[in-house]
Amino acid sequence: MRSHYCGEVNETLEGKSVTVVGWMHRRRDHGGVIFIDLRDRDGLVQVVCNPEDAESFTTAERVRSEYVLKIEGNVQLRPAGSDNPDLKSGKIEIIAKKLEILNSAETPPFPLNELLDVSEDIRLRHRYIDLRRPEMQQRLRFRSQITRQLRNYLDDHGFLDIETPILTKATPEGARDYLVPSRTHPGEFFALPQSPQLFKQLLMMSGFDRYYQVVRCFRDEDLRADRQPEFTQVDIETSFVDEEEFMSLMEEMIRSLFANVLEQPLPNPFPRMTYAEAQQRYGSDKPDLRIPLELVDVSDLMQAVDFKVFSGPANDERGRVAALRVPGGNSLSRKEIDDYTKYVGIYGAKGLAYIKVNDLAAGRDGLQSPILKFLPDDVVEAIMQRVGAETGDLVFFGADKTSVVNESLGALRVKVGQDLDMVEHGWRPLWVVEFPMFEWDDKSERWHALHHPFTAPRESDVGLLETDPEKCLSRAYDMVLNGTELGGGSIRIHQTEIQKKVLELLGIGEEEAQDKFGFLLEALKYGCPPHGGLAFGLDRLVMLMTGSASIRDVMAFPKTQSASCLLTDAPSAIADQQLKELNIRLRKLPNAEAQ
Amino acid sequence: MRSHYCGEVNETLEGKSVTVVGWMHRRRDHGGVIFIDLRDRDGLVQVVCNPEDAESFTTAERVRSEYVLKIEGNVQLRPAGSDNPDLKSGKIEIIAKKLEILNSAETPPFPLNELLDVSEDIRLRHRYIDLRRPEMQQRLRFRSQITRQLRNYLDDHGFLDIETPILTKATPEGARDYLVPSRTHPGEFFALPQSPQLFKQLLMMSGFDRYYQVVRCFRDEDLRADRQPEFTQVDIETSFVDEEEFMSLMEEMIRSLFANVLEQPLPNPFPRMTYAEAQQRYGSDKPDLRIPLELVDVSDLMQAVDFKVFSGPANDERGRVAALRVPGGNSLSRKEIDDYTKYVGIYGAKGLAYIKVNDLAAGRDGLQSPILKFLPDDVVEAIMQRVGAETGDLVFFGADKTSVVNESLGALRVKVGQDLDMVEHGWRPLWVVEFPMFEWDDKSERWHALHHPFTAPRESDVGLLETDPEKCLSRAYDMVLNGTELGGGSIRIHQTEIQKKVLELLGIGEEEAQDKFGFLLEALKYGCPPHGGLAFGLDRLVMLMTGSASIRDVMAFPKTQSASCLLTDAPSAIADQQLKELNIRLRKLPNAEAQ
Repeated sequence: MRSHYCGEVNETLEGKSVTVVGWMHRRRDHGGVIFIDLRDRDGLVQVVCNPEDAESFTTAERVRSEYVLKIEGNVQLRPAGSDNPDLKSGKIEIIAKKLEILNSAETPPFPLNELLDVSEDIRLRHRYIDLRRPEMQQRLRFRSQITRQLRNYLDDHGFLDIETPILTKATPEGARDYLVPSRTHPGEFFALPQSPQLFKQLLMMSGFDRYYQVVRCFRDEDLRADRQPEFTQVDIETSFVDEEEFMSLMEEMIRSLFANVLEQPLPNPFPRMTYAEAQQRYGSDKPDLRIPLELVDVSDLMQAVDFKVFSGPANDERGRVAALRVPGGNSLSRKEIDDYTKYVGIYGAKGLAYIKVNDLAAGRDGLQSPILKFLPDDVVEAIMQRVGAETGDLVFFGADKTSVVNESLGALRVKVGQDLDMVEHGWRPLWVVEFPMFEWDDKSERWHALHHPFTAPRESDVGLLETDPEKCLSRAYDMVLNGTELGGGSIRIHQTEIQKKVLELLGIGEEEAQDKFGFLLEALKYGCPPHGGLAFGLDRLVMLMTGSASIRDVMAFPKTQSASCLLTDAPSAIADQQLKELNIRLRKLPNAEAQ
Repeated sequence: MRSHYCGEVNETLEGKSVTVVGWMHRRRDHGGVIFIDLRDRDGLVQVVCNPEDAESFTTAERVRSEYVLKIEGNVQLRPAGSDNPDLKSGKIEIIAKKLEILNSAETPPFPLNELLDVSEDIRLRHRYIDLRRPEMQQRLRFRSQITRQLRNYLDDHGFLDIETPILTKATPEGARDYLVPSRTHPGEFFALPQSPQLFKQLLMMSGFDRYYQVVRCFRDEDLRADRQPEFTQVDIETSFVDEEEFMSLMEEMIRSLFANVLEQPLPNPFPRMTYAEAQQRYGSDKPDLRIPLELVDVSDLMQAVDFKVFSGPANDERGRVAALRVPGGNSLSRKEIDDYTKYVGIYGAKGLAYIKVNDLAAGRDGLQSPILKFLPDDVVEAIMQRVGAETGDLVFFGADKTSVVNESLGALRVKVGQDLDMVEHGWRPLWVVEFPMFEWDDKSERWHALHHPFTAPRESDVGLLETDPEKCLSRAYDMVLNGTELGGGSIRIHQTEIQKKVLELLGIGEEEAQDKFGFLLEALKYGCPPHGGLAFGLDRLVMLMTGSASIRDVMAFPKTQSASCLLTDAPSAIADQQLKELNIRLRKLPNAEAQ
């Protein structure tokens, strides 16, 4: 129907006749002439309807916001001085010769031609209107480009796109599964996959050598932060490689993605950091390297002080005392420091000690702190020296179990960095490596897998599985970008004996293992190649690359925090007959609850 | 780990050292030397282990079927006369210098190096072994190429890959939905989509202009024939186009797919056939044009005969009498004809009349048939003439309601064509167009949508919605290849009034419409562009292109006819705690049933 997209019409078409279609974005009546901004996915173009052209002018008079129009006309340069440099088509206008209303429109629930503060609920309920906004168009278009770029890279590197089931067996990832009652097997259920982990490992055992899939995954979790019940992974697995080869392939993929889609270079190679160092310096396994603040260990300095809050953790093998110097931070108000104290409380910290450095040269007198009285001169001096304090700084302290110190100061580091505008521009990717295989969970009093139960231990650490599981490091690697985990993966276990040993350590008995993934254990017996892989979170990657505030902004039809779709009103009640066919009943009638 | 894939090692590498990895496919000990065929996804290569190389020879002696090996060695030409022309690597062999066992293997449940008749159940249960077979490798590799090719075409033509939800609202496609209980909304359920139909229409209303997605769809049907509970569609929608433009774009996509992947040309353009003609000539809306048999209408000739079986349908407006000439068919035995009679019974035919043409020149005496006595000379002669009978032929007859005649003779046409080896080679695509909007369903005594309720009527036929719905033709189109529907689609309704009228005709009341797709009706109000699209069945397309017998053979992890996965044992029982969280109970305990 069209000869050009609206955004494509520019001065090279001067004097030519064009046909454009789209939505009436804005209309102005000026000096007896009607100006229409017509919008399509490519942009806006200005159409001029003169009263001399009676038929199209009369039609134009009826046109309202969001009407769908087809307009034929001649391209001419705008009168001098009326160019719009914000538009690709800003140097020209189309003189309408024929204007056809393809469809009318009621007044939309919120206007598209003004920047208004519309609640997200309204946006989601009328998502088809919200998606017309140029920024949403741009984001989803960008997402399509990113996906394409990643696919092309993988296709070009010999990876095969292989589909795995969505109706499958409960996965061992640990989060809650979405379940689907089977009609043909009464009392039994499918699970929607949290990831195709086991299937991709089976594909390696099947000899496909290199696999990928852009695949939907599901988690029935309470949606904290910015999560969605369904999300998309770029899932990758390959055989006969070691970490080095695979990581450099993956990092090259991400580098070429940023170069091709954003035209922005990423470092080559990405820096690497061990899990231990990341925790030590940033209190996190996904450090945001754009923030120039670091945790500094001061446990050794605190061991002999009289202040139990510090000396306790300092002398505990599982404890830590760390400092976080904030340059220029002594301008923080009491109120701000109180707020940060509350903030670290979320992460289990019982308080937030600090020292303000009003005048470093003045020694103790130049410092200001409620805890100063507990610390002898030499300790204070050593701390100031070790953190590199300067006049005008503030130094925060965390003292607790190591995990609490890391989590709370790690989070504080990011928050303070953002609040004080310290976040550097640009992209700071890194690999985090040498994760422990296991972490001890105090609640369940069991070892948990830091990645998942199929992650291989380092070859040199296999012996530690027997003697000292806590020290056993894995062959896992996470790619981190600006404080976000872009993807995580590992070399997998390919030997039955090691797999059994790891499951045993995780407290997964033989019966449970057989029941949950007996097919994997069985498959391992028949010639499993060494293999490994990784999964990228596509939604989060697109969010980062588009600078969006939420993953909901890079999905066409996201769900709310309570996992419902405001547009379609899903989930919804179903007919009794359907329940019957599925051999289930409701525990309580929804009506009974509503009363 | 490797320098080359096994299949890549050829005579151009003569004298070079290579490293290959893979599975021990076959081993022969011959004249004190061990020959190993090593297999990877690219093919086989022959490795020679000489006793002079003591270490690798000793290792080779331990190697059994499906062991995973890494072999370093020198490439040399095979001794004269021992080339294997079946292998890409058939002119060379690798003289092993280093042989490493990367993993051992138990004896697989079925051998991979012999062609044995293994039941499909065993193959599915040990799918990871089955997928190692070169033909399965080839098929899935091919599938990956086909998907890539289709994506590239669509990407290059401005289509955006946009993801739509899997956890969504019950779709109005008509088959049974898979349902997912919501934990956070007790008593409510998500449905897995039978297609993203409504979402893709909403994307058009959102102004994305061109959309595609390679997307999983779900149907909880009893699996007749070759169906799967989850299947993959190449789903496409576009705005501001008419049938002509869109169909030519789609047919060009399929043509380029066959050209690029199979290097086989398809006709340009694809022939078109109306639904009426397809039913008339082939008794089917997806005629297999490779079969040179056609139904010939003889109703008019039968109206006056004394034989009620023929004259009844011939005089009934909804009846039909048709003939199917089978060249050379008079060699069919009584038994064969009886079998065909049973076969058409499946489609509701109450019998299968026939005339054998033993000697056309001999007139009535040259014919042989139980029904001959009911037909006067002039009618017999007219029939012979109309069907173009020749000596040696057999002519079948169908007389019944039109739908029964079409279905039974249509199916018979295909069966006889296959049985008598009449199926021509090559690809015979076509478009079937001008479908009726509605068909009357005798059982429910209602109009049903022949495509779906969002299919637009032809503009010239809109008036017929009021006056004569049966005559109203739609803007739907199906792409058919060799008797299989590759894809179906239509221009959609973009006007509220027409959509309401169609829903009304289909007996979908306002309340039901509001409940099921109120959001679509709402969205139609705000400036819906003219739009249309199509969905291809990817599994079936790959099946056709790979010449596979079943769609199960082109899926990595298919389910059985009873919708279960023999590999993972899904679906399976779940814990009481999970049921509780989902606010459901089982109607009967599975244990109670098992007893």
